[in-house]
Amino acid sequence: MATTGTFEILHEDPASKARLGRLWTAHGPVDTPVFMPVGTQATVKALAPWELEDLNCQILLGNTYHLNVRPGMEVIEKLGGLHRFEDWHNAILTDSGGYQVFSLTNLRKMTPDGVEFQSHVDGTKMFMGPRESMAIQRILGSDIAMAFDECPPCPCTKKYAEEAIDRTLRWAAIASGEPRAEGQLRFGIVQGGVYPDLRQKCAEGILALPGYEGYAIGGVSVGEPDELIMPGVQMTVDLLPRDRPRYLMGVGQWWQIAESVAAGVDMFDCVMPTRLARHGMVFTRRGRYSVKAARHRLDDRPIEEGCTCPACRRFSRAYVRHLLNVNEILGARLTALHNMYAYFDFIRRLRTAIADGTLDAFRAETTAAYGPSAPKSFPDL
Amino acid sequence: MATTGTFEILHEDPASKARLGRLWTAHGPVDTPVFMPVGTQATVKALAPWELEDLNCQILLGNTYHLNVRPGMEVIEKLGGLHRFEDWHNAILTDSGGYQVFSLTNLRKMTPDGVEFQSHVDGTKMFMGPRESMAIQRILGSDIAMAFDECPPCPCTKKYAEEAIDRTLRWAAIASGEPRAEGQLRFGIVQGGVYPDLRQKCAEGILALPGYEGYAIGGVSVGEPDELIMPGVQMTVDLLPRDRPRYLMGVGQWWQIAESVAAGVDMFDCVMPTRLARHGMVFTRRGRYSVKAARHRLDDRPIEEGCTCPACRRFSRAYVRHLLNVNEILGARLTALHNMYAYFDFIRRLRTAIADGTLDAFRAETTAAYGPSAPKSFPDL
Repeated sequence: MATTGTFEILHEDPASKARLGRLWTAHGPVDTPVFMPVGTQATVKALAPWELEDLNCQILLGNTYHLNVRPGMEVIEKLGGLHRFEDWHNAILTDSGGYQVFSLTNLRKMTPDGVEFQSHVDGTKMFMGPRESMAIQRILGSDIAMAFDECPPCPCTKKYAEEAIDRTLRWAAIASGEPRAEGQLRFGIVQGGVYPDLRQKCAEGILALPGYEGYAIGGVSVGEPDELIMPGVQMTVDLLPRDRPRYLMGVGQWWQIAESVAAGVDMFDCVMPTRLARHGMVFTRRGRYSVKAARHRLDDRPIEEGCTCPACRRFSRAYVRHLLNVNEILGARLTALHNMYAYFDFIRRLRTAIADGTLDAFRAETTAAYGPSAPKSFPDL
Repeated sequence: MATTGTFEILHEDPASKARLGRLWTAHGPVDTPVFMPVGTQATVKALAPWELEDLNCQILLGNTYHLNVRPGMEVIEKLGGLHRFEDWHNAILTDSGGYQVFSLTNLRKMTPDGVEFQSHVDGTKMFMGPRESMAIQRILGSDIAMAFDECPPCPCTKKYAEEAIDRTLRWAAIASGEPRAEGQLRFGIVQGGVYPDLRQKCAEGILALPGYEGYAIGGVSVGEPDELIMPGVQMTVDLLPRDRPRYLMGVGQWWQIAESVAAGVDMFDCVMPTRLARHGMVFTRRGRYSVKAARHRLDDRPIEEGCTCPACRRFSRAYVRHLLNVNEILGARLTALHNMYAYFDFIRRLRTAIADGTLDAFRAETTAAYGPSAPKSFPDL
């Protein structure tokens, strides 16, 4: 096992900027490109950790803000950290809490050291800044901690975006000096909205700081039109060092993942597989569709023909549709299981395409099934 | 494998009326005494069939009324019957629908052939009687079908109770001549409320009919005081033949199961393990308690010390409590898993006590932990 923090580049695609890599954490290796399931409240919704282990899932995401509100750090600390609390033996990345503080809470007051706000659950007054965020992530004991940042939504004026990156840089400088949990890596975040010069300014500022082993692209897919997403990603990736892992935060549509990998991104997270599952939207290699649709009432086929997930091995669309219609928990479990299998299968095929030099064809195929012009739900699957 | 319908009595307790038996169904043997988890809408709430298989669960219960409303018989028939629909390979017992028709629906009109009522979901006008109930259970393809009966709640006047058993007997006579699914067994139901002479009249009427391979005790634990429950059970068991399986419907508290087994009952079903699980109430050998209680906020112990269920092997009470507090599906999954393990462990110990001649001590222990005088929730577990 290599030293924690080592990022090995195992293969580079000669035809794009894609690469196959391996990041070593205190809880084992993470093979990239990687998709990280989101365990907001110390669980990936509807799934058990052994189901994610069966997928060879190497890393989960946890949400600093949510975990700090409930159950709170006294509980997590007493129970021995997030890994032990949720019984997860592989790596965990925690976000900084910045995104939730700015998007979920009310009555915010900005100070040079952070943000004062009210909890979205019961209105309790709270304060979070780079020191608090790092302290919480230290207690959580995550393998990768994120710097506390401000992620403005789109649209956002250039003036506001500039103020936000000034705060983000100031906070990143404070966070870089904070103590860490044992073996904990720390990633900086590049913001700047849709403004290339602000992205550049922010990247330069973050890269000049000590104490960061990886870099994230924040503020993408926060309301801007589809056609602005990829240029923003490409422009920011090009500002980041080749030899460090690059993480595109919160972006999880398959075509976006495929295109971003081609641009040089290594890590992704998104709530989409489990959130859409609860509404009956399922992912297949050929596109996504709603298994709740009336046309599946008598449909004896599995969710995806040929899929070997526990849902597809045993049950028909008619059965899954029935469970969702009557609000049975097993319905959400089966669609979440299938979608998670589909995501991991997608990433496996993406890695194979990089290794085999067929990424171009894979991107075209993915965009046809899932790109901005593809139907949101295929009726004929 | 013995002929379907064979009921072997393997051992009789010399000190009580308890027995160990084995009922052979078209989907394998059912060792008695047995607890049947309830899969109302084609799933046991929060659990997957492979989790019940891990418990060596030999038989599930399905609800005729609910399955007929949703997904409806067209779906179940097209999908090849209930076993295939819910991917369950062991036995299934279906109730008759009578209990739900009389307790859930509005605007009932009684006729000699059944009941006209409105669906509890959307008010659709429906009709169910012995012929309809048997036809539905034939399509479901259950291994044991129940005769369509009327189960009046308690209190109930003697006059009404008598009218209800007249209907129940008339309907049982009709049902006894209806065709069955292949290998399907049929059980008759003895009603009569708290009135011994009506219980006797009903039992005699049912036993005189051909076409029944087992008998159920209905109308117990439907609102009568605790002290009337066991006398009602004992009195009715004594009216039933020794060589046929006896099923006490809907009764599932542990002390009631232990006492009823001592009186000669073989089969039980109850929604309690999964329903209470969703509210955080968990079963242990020493009694039950609420894992949601504030005192478990920092509690590092598993739900039950020494338990080997998947929840207790991996998680603390503090974690389970947190999941329930934030409404995560995994919370209901873990408490349901634990409670189902606890129920199967209870039945295993009960069987051992019969085999070892220690049923008296086991009954006393069970009544101390779960009897009418025991706390509903133990604070010190």
